[in-house]
Amino acid sequence: MANAFYAQSGGVTAVINASACGVIQTARKHKNIISNVLVGRNGIIGALREELFDTSLESDEAIAALMHTPGGAFGSCRYKLKSIEENREQYQRLIEVFKAHDIRYFFYNGGGDSQDTAHKVSQMSEQMDFPITCIGIPKTVDNDLPITDTCPGFGSVAKYVAVSIREAGLDVASMAESSTKVFIMEVMGRHAGWIAAAGGLSAEHEGDAPHIILFPEIQFDQKAFLAKVDHCVKIYGYCAIVVSEGLKNPEGKFVADAGLKDAFGHTQLGGVAPVIASIIKDNLGYKYHWAVADYLQRSARHIASETDLEQAYAVGEAAVELAIAGKNGILPVIIRESDSPYQWSIGEAPLSDVANVEKKMPRDFISDDGFSITEKARRYLQPLIEGEAYPPYKNGLPQYVKLKNQLVAKKLSDDFKI
Amino acid sequence: MANAFYAQSGGVTAVINASACGVIQTARKHKNIISNVLVGRNGIIGALREELFDTSLESDEAIAALMHTPGGAFGSCRYKLKSIEENREQYQRLIEVFKAHDIRYFFYNGGGDSQDTAHKVSQMSEQMDFPITCIGIPKTVDNDLPITDTCPGFGSVAKYVAVSIREAGLDVASMAESSTKVFIMEVMGRHAGWIAAAGGLSAEHEGDAPHIILFPEIQFDQKAFLAKVDHCVKIYGYCAIVVSEGLKNPEGKFVADAGLKDAFGHTQLGGVAPVIASIIKDNLGYKYHWAVADYLQRSARHIASETDLEQAYAVGEAAVELAIAGKNGILPVIIRESDSPYQWSIGEAPLSDVANVEKKMPRDFISDDGFSITEKARRYLQPLIEGEAYPPYKNGLPQYVKLKNQLVAKKLSDDFKI
Repeated sequence: MANAFYAQSGGVTAVINASACGVIQTARKHKNIISNVLVGRNGIIGALREELFDTSLESDEAIAALMHTPGGAFGSCRYKLKSIEENREQYQRLIEVFKAHDIRYFFYNGGGDSQDTAHKVSQMSEQMDFPITCIGIPKTVDNDLPITDTCPGFGSVAKYVAVSIREAGLDVASMAESSTKVFIMEVMGRHAGWIAAAGGLSAEHEGDAPHIILFPEIQFDQKAFLAKVDHCVKIYGYCAIVVSEGLKNPEGKFVADAGLKDAFGHTQLGGVAPVIASIIKDNLGYKYHWAVADYLQRSARHIASETDLEQAYAVGEAAVELAIAGKNGILPVIIRESDSPYQWSIGEAPLSDVANVEKKMPRDFISDDGFSITEKARRYLQPLIEGEAYPPYKNGLPQYVKLKNQLVAKKLSDDFKI
Repeated sequence: MANAFYAQSGGVTAVINASACGVIQTARKHKNIISNVLVGRNGIIGALREELFDTSLESDEAIAALMHTPGGAFGSCRYKLKSIEENREQYQRLIEVFKAHDIRYFFYNGGGDSQDTAHKVSQMSEQMDFPITCIGIPKTVDNDLPITDTCPGFGSVAKYVAVSIREAGLDVASMAESSTKVFIMEVMGRHAGWIAAAGGLSAEHEGDAPHIILFPEIQFDQKAFLAKVDHCVKIYGYCAIVVSEGLKNPEGKFVADAGLKDAFGHTQLGGVAPVIASIIKDNLGYKYHWAVADYLQRSARHIASETDLEQAYAVGEAAVELAIAGKNGILPVIIRESDSPYQWSIGEAPLSDVANVEKKMPRDFISDDGFSITEKARRYLQPLIEGEAYPPYKNGLPQYVKLKNQLVAKKLSDDFKI
């Protein structure tokens, strides 16, 4: 019998807490093996600082409510461990903390960088002769982890983006005759166009929004883009555009950094949508509106995908079951058994194969002209947004749980600096 | 027996089609009085151009599906009729079209400007001796019509904004230790802070998001604002801000127009959120993210308020019933009977009292420091976001109806220019 450590890492999602729920509920079923799940406050930082939440103080109801609560219920972090050679003290500190709290299981819930951390902890276990079972838990809205068919968190952003552009498209279509003719919605995805591609699911029939998707994978061709915008306005009366924040110009620079300056000459920060809007205004003169969804898209638990939610829970559950089965240094992954009907199962991948590997979107997911998705992309994406899983409401607002998050008493000196 | 004309006007909403549904379904119950509802394509422009959709060709199912379809199903417009003295030809044209299609009822669904149009048509009826029954139908996300307790469309935007800042707030709270500390969400409301105020509903307990609301009613005090942001970050670890697009600086200018320039020296268009972000970055140095909800907020049928939906239907239904009862030149309005339990009924107001009157948000809805809402505002706002009314989904996406929208044959010459 020993304790487990769990932590959330990197950008949070609408369903990362469902993975936490899977871990804690499954551990509670095996109290003869895992006495308690201690959770790092703000990810791995909590382990280094010996700031550990005691989940045994949380009721079964509170843990169940994690299923419908977005954000990271225990706090997350952007913090990457260095290699053992570069920063041995950090690993020694981790071992001290784990020993002090009888932690023999390490569950780390995050994306590529985070799985690198999980992998390093697993290497530490071998190299520094400290026995700990390391299991990663996949999570990232960017959908860029290798091996797994998809990443929990992505399906819900995908659904949010597809629903939002469908709705906004209807709005613009109504107004186009005498007002706004072009609408631009900026979505996440600095390096890959998975999220932007999901917007394409909204367009089921000729003329449906979005009419144009701008992918980070496709160099921005201003002339072709403007011709297409103009064509859409002339044919459909309006043009709805989804643009990825990672769109790059022919020089390979982010279009978002195209040099917007404020009144004091400072570079303005972020936002490719207003840049695209300016280009349209200057060249075509159409009235436009733009939206930047930013965190709204990845926290939108109110419109989460049920498929995504189930998968997020399943990888948390599987992580504990795999650990109990004696597996180590692995990541539970989602395996697609079939597209239609959509069927999936949980498999496993070595952390060493996952850490720091970025899965790109295949070129054949993007149409030849670079402005929309292909049927192949649609077959891949559609099942991921399937199903609704509404949170409970009170007084018109979703009821999200706030845990007690009580720290266990420290057993070590407080002088470790991260 | 005669036909009715119905049109949608101004910015559309998540529930304006529910009002259309109320009009058409109620008219269908009284076919002995109203033979058919002809709908203006793109609002009043459709009447002037003799572009009239024949709703008798739409099935009962399609009309019922308007209840869950956002945007303006018949097209809307931003077009204000001039006075009869200024442009008599327009009114003569309207009378010709109405005569040609046996239209004796005029239902106009819109905000203050649109009710001005409805009022002018009603004046035309008197001054030009053409008998037509004119009834307005209230609609505007801005919530700025007088007399009515609220405006259909507003409750759903209010719900979207409150839900979104609650969700994004949880996201930022998770990340604040090592990443984003300040989040800014820009919402609509060029002249009044009703929508921004609705964001305040999310904050039910000390420390809940949003921590700061920037209202158009309160001059932007940069020093006080920055002090409050800094305080929130120090006390709560993060700061979530809702800012109205209509925020003004002490010179009375829109902060959004504060002079952002692109690389070519053109003024950048719209977006107060990035301006506020720059101010925070330059003065406090905190990492931030910002979102601009724009059309997403007013088209978000997927998270519409059930109360709002019911009221939108009720004013459409009442408009027809009032017309049949012989009323003229009026607007059905929502009367609040009590706050808790929330009870409301439908009353009526003369169009002359409604046209061009803007209801401001009372100062006592805003806290003394100008950064949050009062209990009084909360009592007013809360019932308006009550209840969920989800649209049907298929393949993970909401199923919105697309009407046939078949034009009736023209009977007049085509040479009228608007």
